[in-house]
Amino acid sequence: MIGDYAKTDVVKAFPTTPIREVAKLMAERRVGLVVLVDPKQQDRVVGVVSERDVVKAVAFDADLNSPVDTIATKNVVTLDYGENVAKAAEVFKKYGIRHVVVTKDGKLYGVLSIRDIIREDAILKEVAEFYEWTFEPGMSA
Amino acid sequence: MIGDYAKTDVVKAFPTTPIREVAKLMAERRVGLVVLVDPKQQDRVVGVVSERDVVKAVAFDADLNSPVDTIATKNVVTLDYGENVAKAAEVFKKYGIRHVVVTKDGKLYGVLSIRDIIREDAILKEVAEFYEWTFEPGMSA
Repeated sequence: MIGDYAKTDVVKAFPTTPIREVAKLMAERRVGLVVLVDPKQQDRVVGVVSERDVVKAVAFDADLNSPVDTIATKNVVTLDYGENVAKAAEVFKKYGIRHVVVTKDGKLYGVLSIRDIIREDAILKEVAEFYEWTFEPGMSA
Repeated sequence: MIGDYAKTDVVKAFPTTPIREVAKLMAERRVGLVVLVDPKQQDRVVGVVSERDVVKAVAFDADLNSPVDTIATKNVVTLDYGENVAKAAEVFKKYGIRHVVVTKDGKLYGVLSIRDIIREDAILKEVAEFYEWTFEPGMSA
């Protein structure tokens, strides 16, 4: 299940954190996604900021000292800790995203990146088994 | 082979293109990697710029009107058109990258992204078969 592979040392910021500070967090912590949380309840997800969002801010000449809230995605795609990896692969495909926020009991648990799927042979195998299920009989090895 | 999956409508820029213009290309063309080519020989790759490179430029307060050359990666990881997908997955893992430049006869052919691997069931199957090879006997389905 994805809870086993998600990174739990989530890089967080607040909606009011300046865009440039969020870029610094991404660079220093080497992550592609920063999770915005409610300052008063830091396991409550209120948005996400991806590298792409920062690139867009540069492209559209945004003030990089303005609150990150202005460029964040508010409709966050989340998956429960107990979901299987094939479901995550499906979500990555469907939404064209590279990171998904993982929740446990509705609260922030971690972040699963598309790279985590490629990195873990065990995950690849799990995904593969799922897909082999759906292939025509006779096609599987 | 990866030549079948690589995107051949590569988004290119020159080493002298300003960082902000490259960010605009990424945003408009919805790509995570811009390939820098020699202006006089545009199938010759001289660097790559990823979304992460742009994020770092923001983080380190670079002048976004300066040539992209200042933030580009010069040691470009390339794979030949005929390589198999498992090899690409290995390269993504090894270098911690999400895009690889694909060449044919040493010239720019396309870009393969990690997302292309997740997107294509056929690719997943190819990768899976490779990994099942390396698992212990008795573990495969």
